[in-house]
Amino acid sequence: MVKICIVDTTFARVDMARHAIDVLLNLMPGARIVRRTVPGIKDIPVEIKRLMKKEDCDAGMVFGWVGRTLNDKISYGVYSLAMQLVQLELEKHIIDVTVHEDEAESEEELYRIAVDRARKHAENLYLLLYRPDVLTERAGTGRRQGYPDAGPITW
Amino acid sequence: MVKICIVDTTFARVDMARHAIDVLLNLMPGARIVRRTVPGIKDIPVEIKRLMKKEDCDAGMVFGWVGRTLNDKISYGVYSLAMQLVQLELEKHIIDVTVHEDEAESEEELYRIAVDRARKHAENLYLLLYRPDVLTERAGTGRRQGYPDAGPITW
Amino acid sequence: MVKICIVDTTFARVDMARHAIDVLLNLMPGARIVRRTVPGIKDIPVEIKRLMKKEDCDAGMVFGWVGRTLNDKISYGVYSLAMQLVQLELEKHIIDVTVHEDEAESEEELYRIAVDRARKHAENLYLLLYRPDVLTERAGTGRRQGYPDAGPITW
Amino acid sequence: MVKICIVDTTFARVDMARHAIDVLLNLMPGARIVRRTVPGIKDIPVEIKRLMKKEDCDAGMVFGWVGRTLNDKISYGVYSLAMQLVQLELEKHIIDVTVHEDEAESEEELYRIAVDRARKHAENLYLLLYRPDVLTERAGTGRRQGYPDAGPITW
Amino acid sequence: MVKICIVDTTFARVDMARHAIDVLLNLMPGARIVRRTVPGIKDIPVEIKRLMKKEDCDAGMVFGWVGRTLNDKISYGVYSLAMQLVQLELEKHIIDVTVHEDEAESEEELYRIAVDRARKHAENLYLLLYRPDVLTERAGTGRRQGYPDAGPITW
Repeated sequence: MVKICIVDTTFARVDMARHAIDVLLNLMPGARIVRRTVPGIKDIPVEIKRLMKKEDCDAGMVFGWVGRTLNDKISYGVYSLAMQLVQLELEKHIIDVTVHEDEAESEEELYRIAVDRARKHAENLYLLLYRPDVLTERAGTGRRQGYPDAGPITW
Repeated sequence: MVKICIVDTTFARVDMARHAIDVLLNLMPGARIVRRTVPGIKDIPVEIKRLMKKEDCDAGMVFGWVGRTLNDKISYGVYSLAMQLVQLELEKHIIDVTVHEDEAESEEELYRIAVDRARKHAENLYLLLYRPDVLTERAGTGRRQGYPDAGPITW
Repeated sequence: MVKICIVDTTFARVDMARHAIDVLLNLMPGARIVRRTVPGIKDIPVEIKRLMKKEDCDAGMVFGWVGRTLNDKISYGVYSLAMQLVQLELEKHIIDVTVHEDEAESEEELYRIAVDRARKHAENLYLLLYRPDVLTERAGTGRRQGYPDAGPITW
Repeated sequence: MVKICIVDTTFARVDMARHAIDVLLNLMPGARIVRRTVPGIKDIPVEIKRLMKKEDCDAGMVFGWVGRTLNDKISYGVYSLAMQLVQLELEKHIIDVTVHEDEAESEEELYRIAVDRARKHAENLYLLLYRPDVLTERAGTGRRQGYPDAGPITW
Repeated sequence: MVKICIVDTTFARVDMARHAIDVLLNLMPGARIVRRTVPGIKDIPVEIKRLMKKEDCDAGMVFGWVGRTLNDKISYGVYSLAMQLVQLELEKHIIDVTVHEDEAESEEELYRIAVDRARKHAENLYLLLYRPDVLTERAGTGRRQGYPDAGPITW
């Protein structure tokens, strides 16, 4: 039985984890999901590290939401690096689903990006765990999450 | 009995820790608070690390204040990353309440942001420690500290 | 027998690993190649670390692809630093072949850069492993991957 | 007897350490000062780490000087983060007195900033070691080093 | 007998190591130099770490060369931080001689900067190892490598 740890935030404006859990349980009906929520992205790394260790999860997903200011960008860089440190120490994949508010002009578009990114990355986590061969078939093919695929460049 | 370590600075222009302690003791009347003050944000990480270890605190709060220049922004990024390292090593939450001087034009507004952020994050720390279920209910609902809540996006 | 670990992404728009493997096997016919593919660059460091340890590879190659936005640039910096941490911990070379979409205006040019960089860095890995003397002969001579050599400056 | 390790640079244009030592010995007549000088800020972290360990200093002071270019800013960020790593590993305060050349237009003003910052931070180090109560009294009062105090914001 | 480890790149457009070795052997005729060359700056940290450990060098020098684009700047920051990590772990000085292509408009000027910086930093390494007293005499005197000395500011 696979076990997935999930941490999201009250700062985010879309409940991305709900969509990801939906996909995860559809692809891995026997999976066990453990979920925690923290205030903002700077609280995620320590929470997911503790949770992964305490619950002995096989992999994780985290859901970030980042504002438009320079301060937000700096915080994103810090958060993102901390997530690398957690993954390198635990030696387990923790897929980061982050939406940046400057990715879209309208709330509708942000919502669409958030849901699409959460669902596609949930599928990616499944592939990492059970079907690495499918990922290798897709190597260099310009897959995107939150946007339409860019596709491969061929000449 | 829960024990909370707090570190703030003489650089900050608002005594945010006082407001946070007020909320913490209101929500957790039996809590013990240990507080230290350092000159600026670059002195916080080592102080809170030492204090958390020496006092065996369950969680921490730190209060930063950041100027408007590029040098200040760089220092904030460095400080913020060091705070991630401390949390990851101790495996305990240390909520960062930082006010950036470019968040507002007037001193009055900066003051309001600082107090609101300190008080709301004190409540967040209580929720992390005692009511994680409430945080998960609020997942993806666009909560803000220092500003009005952005609210969830729904379509 | 030398063993090379390779990790690339489904995000990339060119299958650079294929070109690198072609060069590696041409220069080192007895080499064993182990390859994995992950969604994006933020998933590479933990994957190559796990793979290098599990497969006991002598060296590695990773293939990144980075978009044009500020968010992409931040992610690249984070990814790049994590790759340094992996190399420093394992004490083995892992050559990073990253293409940035702002390196060229046309897809044709991006494709040309990607293939040239992958092939030349595959040769570099061979030189690091078997012919360090050739690299020292080339010290300070302005070699480039993805572009024509800049050449040495002499006066 | 308290022991203070000091590292400064030949790059800096003001002998800030001399002023800091003057204040330190005035406030702590029995203190022992150990001082080393390195070429530039990138050489400081390893030197102060070695010195603090070898001399078993109780605390440290480092004196940086940073130019106006983007390259200088990047180097400052790197230096500053390395200083955090040293402090977190040694669990001792090392106050960073850094002057940025873009802080002032004239050499006279830069000189004044450098001396004032060095002297005030030397006093801060004394307070950290012997009078933490005084620092807490000053919490949130807008103290500055190199500039006049900003003062507290009150409403 | 002192032993110095050196790593440079094939990316650089000037053979700076040659000039540095010339100075090192002039100042320390009995020194033993061990030199390796890697493709670019991102390959330097792991190479110098391995070399310093394998050869048990007393100190090191690395020679970087950085292009003009934002991608180059990010890579420089990452490289520079990794070099801090190596020094802090080994607790030995490794002087970084890096030339940035945006430091000069003409190739002639870049060449002059590169050679001057390499030679002066080779002297600096000698002073760090054998004459720390001379460095302290020069504290705060505005020494530069690659440019004329800025000199001390005095009022």
